[in-house]
Amino acid sequence: MSQDNEAVLRVIVVGGVAGGASAAARARRCDARAQITILEKGPVVSFANCGLPYHIGGEIEERSKLLVATPELFWERFRIRVRVQHEVKCIDRQARTVTGVDDKGQEFKMPYDRLILATGAEPFWPPTCVTSATNVFQLWTLTDMDRILAYLKQRPAKRATVIGAGFIGLEVVEQLQRRDIAVTLVERCDQVLPQVDREIAKLLQKQLEKNNVNVQLSASVEAVLTNNQLATAVKLASGSSIASELVIVAAGVRPRTQLAKEAGLTIGNSGAVAVNEYGQTEDPLVYAVGDMAEVQHGVLNRRAHVPLAGPANRAGRTAGSHAVFSSAMANGSVNATAIVRVFDLAAGVTGLTEKACIAEGIEYRVATIQATHHANYFPGARGLTIKLIYSPSSGKVLGAQAVGGQGVDKRIDVISTLLHFGGQVEDLANLDLAYAPPFGSAKDPLHMAAFAAQNDLAGIPSLLPSDADLSGYQVVDVRKSDELKTLPLPGAMHIPVDELADRWNELDPLKPTVTVCHSGKRAHVAACWLRGNGFKSVANLNGGMSIRRLFDNCSLPGTE
Amino acid sequence: MSQDNEAVLRVIVVGGVAGGASAAARARRCDARAQITILEKGPVVSFANCGLPYHIGGEIEERSKLLVATPELFWERFRIRVRVQHEVKCIDRQARTVTGVDDKGQEFKMPYDRLILATGAEPFWPPTCVTSATNVFQLWTLTDMDRILAYLKQRPAKRATVIGAGFIGLEVVEQLQRRDIAVTLVERCDQVLPQVDREIAKLLQKQLEKNNVNVQLSASVEAVLTNNQLATAVKLASGSSIASELVIVAAGVRPRTQLAKEAGLTIGNSGAVAVNEYGQTEDPLVYAVGDMAEVQHGVLNRRAHVPLAGPANRAGRTAGSHAVFSSAMANGSVNATAIVRVFDLAAGVTGLTEKACIAEGIEYRVATIQATHHANYFPGARGLTIKLIYSPSSGKVLGAQAVGGQGVDKRIDVISTLLHFGGQVEDLANLDLAYAPPFGSAKDPLHMAAFAAQNDLAGIPSLLPSDADLSGYQVVDVRKSDELKTLPLPGAMHIPVDELADRWNELDPLKPTVTVCHSGKRAHVAACWLRGNGFKSVANLNGGMSIRRLFDNCSLPGTE
Repeated sequence: MSQDNEAVLRVIVVGGVAGGASAAARARRCDARAQITILEKGPVVSFANCGLPYHIGGEIEERSKLLVATPELFWERFRIRVRVQHEVKCIDRQARTVTGVDDKGQEFKMPYDRLILATGAEPFWPPTCVTSATNVFQLWTLTDMDRILAYLKQRPAKRATVIGAGFIGLEVVEQLQRRDIAVTLVERCDQVLPQVDREIAKLLQKQLEKNNVNVQLSASVEAVLTNNQLATAVKLASGSSIASELVIVAAGVRPRTQLAKEAGLTIGNSGAVAVNEYGQTEDPLVYAVGDMAEVQHGVLNRRAHVPLAGPANRAGRTAGSHAVFSSAMANGSVNATAIVRVFDLAAGVTGLTEKACIAEGIEYRVATIQATHHANYFPGARGLTIKLIYSPSSGKVLGAQAVGGQGVDKRIDVISTLLHFGGQVEDLANLDLAYAPPFGSAKDPLHMAAFAAQNDLAGIPSLLPSDADLSGYQVVDVRKSDELKTLPLPGAMHIPVDELADRWNELDPLKPTVTVCHSGKRAHVAACWLRGNGFKSVANLNGGMSIRRLFDNCSLPGTE
Repeated sequence: MSQDNEAVLRVIVVGGVAGGASAAARARRCDARAQITILEKGPVVSFANCGLPYHIGGEIEERSKLLVATPELFWERFRIRVRVQHEVKCIDRQARTVTGVDDKGQEFKMPYDRLILATGAEPFWPPTCVTSATNVFQLWTLTDMDRILAYLKQRPAKRATVIGAGFIGLEVVEQLQRRDIAVTLVERCDQVLPQVDREIAKLLQKQLEKNNVNVQLSASVEAVLTNNQLATAVKLASGSSIASELVIVAAGVRPRTQLAKEAGLTIGNSGAVAVNEYGQTEDPLVYAVGDMAEVQHGVLNRRAHVPLAGPANRAGRTAGSHAVFSSAMANGSVNATAIVRVFDLAAGVTGLTEKACIAEGIEYRVATIQATHHANYFPGARGLTIKLIYSPSSGKVLGAQAVGGQGVDKRIDVISTLLHFGGQVEDLANLDLAYAPPFGSAKDPLHMAAFAAQNDLAGIPSLLPSDADLSGYQVVDVRKSDELKTLPLPGAMHIPVDELADRWNELDPLKPTVTVCHSGKRAHVAACWLRGNGFKSVANLNGGMSIRRLFDNCSLPGTE
């Protein structure tokens, strides 16, 4: 807090949306006398960027709901000066000034004692998508949204292509379908939502296809075909063309670091600005927060670029305190926790995926379970798939993914909390979660996942990867006969679990054996029987047939 | 695992429902050769006891859904012998036998190598409620439920009284109303749901009353009035009589310990059987699990009786492993995490309440916030109240309560996970929770609660208890004028928050000052202004008027 005899601190915040407004408001609450100014390049200082797709589809009916705080509110409540359409072009760290161009095209120069950069990220455009066509858009700012809606008002589209199947791409697809626009989703990877593992993505893909989305994977855009300044089709490298009256590019974002880079600030390995736990750059008077700056990845235990709204807001708050107090609670680490709704399903992820473990060379094991989001005997129970990833050496949980109709957010948040503390599978198994039939189960799906992982770690029995090559194994299918009809597993011995206690002696105890059922639960019981009766090597196929069928290389005749 | 040359282990489990079935099934999975027998006193070995109220109201339509596992399934899948209507009367620990009476009234005697007791709890009947009337019931077993439904079929009731406003009482009330039965809820405490604090209970009481439940608090039953073996009314000590064609007593449960006590096993201070972290009693061959046994309370760090389904299931699993393996993962501590749905609201609790802190002599502070369960700009946002309790000395979170229309279970589970690790307010503020508009906010309600608590702990500014005596304070009401009309705060200075930057000099900086708004958010901004402008002592009224109005002693004219 400033004392009477101290000079008033001049705080400049560059950018409102990506943590900047949060930083400014916090700075004010910590210092009633500081002169605080937000310089925002765009026309709006603060808007709900995560809500933009939902106004495109009309789920959020009123545009005004997306406007978080006006310049007037900032002034009246916080005495924070907001200057919109003021683009900062240069930082002079020696002179402690910023210069730029204001809303009238005039150059301005302002001195600072503390500078907080929150310039955010910017959408990445694959070069082949860059075009002067007026119906090819990105969806990143309120202006982008307004442009799309204005175009659709003028020329209602029947067919659209969305390029990029990440979080925003999926949200846009859903909302365009809501407007009865037939959507093709083009993704260069071999799965939707590259942030999750392929079998989890496959569940989302099925959901998209069920909702009539044309999903094109491993598809790179060769060109956007135009006619008279209007895109008419998206041509893929495969040669096919997708007729489109609207194209939205959602191919990821990059940190917007040019200003910082030109000011000589260090850019980290992730491509974002390097900062310490308070958001300070190497220049202690200059902070960087939000999508432009690095954060600490809690599971990888290193700096990373995780452009998400939650961490951005919290980083803004920390920098706002620290800039005026010179002290603050340090920013916590992030687990890249994220969630997306895809029609009637949600998919969430926290910590490391299996892919990330492989890429990082981290030893891992996987347990995948299926359960209902609340007591299965209570009406409205929805299916939930949880994939838990953990370390075979330490037993530490490394990450989780979940897909389901309800309760995905809860399970992901609990795992993220556990990751915050470096918790183990054993901790997860012991969590005391709230239970009543409308909300959960006495054994929550998270407990079931932890139990499966514990059994795997203790080898009672271990889990075989869902997509493992089963040749060489004595495969014991313990499902009921009618289940085999809809989802066959050729080459397996068939002994229903409830007959196994009498029939295990039909099997060869010396052969490496794997038990299989629909979800892995009955196969666990079966594997325990065999293990307890002296079978030398027994494993349970992780997640059973319900997960195995999601792997292309394991597809079975007549099952898709 | 038994070796060929070892004798087969004889495991007897007494009681199926309260963790017993879970113990038996786990013992089988860990030991394929053990002889495992469940002796169950009642007619059903395993049923969904938490689902019983919901079949009374018809929300769970089919009774069969409540039957978890049949004796046939136990035999076919697990080779576990189930003997229903076998009541164990005596344990001879020296001889390692149990004796009892079987389904034909014959005495039986069975030897054991390991004995797992899961006799559960039994409903407590206030002496004045004990009657031979045929329409006064408890709801604890499937038989109880069947009796109530049979009675209602024969004599449809129009008015019912439920005695006890705990979790089961509230569920029964909701389900009877669903059947269009007018319900009076009688509770001897001065609030519903004595497991939570009074202002949280008041929110539930309002919800009950909104749904036409007649709530009678601080009401003790003097007698159940009968006519011809039928209860006709419940007479209260106050003198009033409540006409009732159906009475359900749900006045709490007590651990069923007689068998263990007679076998010389130690009963803990909580009244439940003393066990170690594996569920072992002082006799290493005898285990006790579930509602009859103690658990470790994580926040109090001592043994306690917490009769809930989740811990019971997990304790059963642990004892089942340990009984046959002589090793197992230790049971985790519990936080007495619980949740209940009351019509359109849910209320949850984990860890310590304010009441519990007072009773235990534990120093605590309280931050209460109001938020929406997901982004407020996204359709369907429901209000959520979170009360966070934390230690002023260590900053550790001690417990939390939440009430709201959606998302209560998620927040309670996250806090329970944090309690598992002994987390602090700072940890809560830094959690990386999943955010997309349909699921949460960039600043989750949990973050908001943590931020409020952090501000309180750091004194920027501190929080004044919601029900504090405001006399002697300079009270500054920063709400808008129209808010004062519906919920006045007599005696306060009125300066809307957005005018405070210009008008704070109307106030006396030397007087102890408290700022007030509806929820505490704007009052925080106001308190920061005053503090930053040299006011000597400033506090923010915790939770604002929305919480203060819930305290009887703070009720304001014309507000209820």
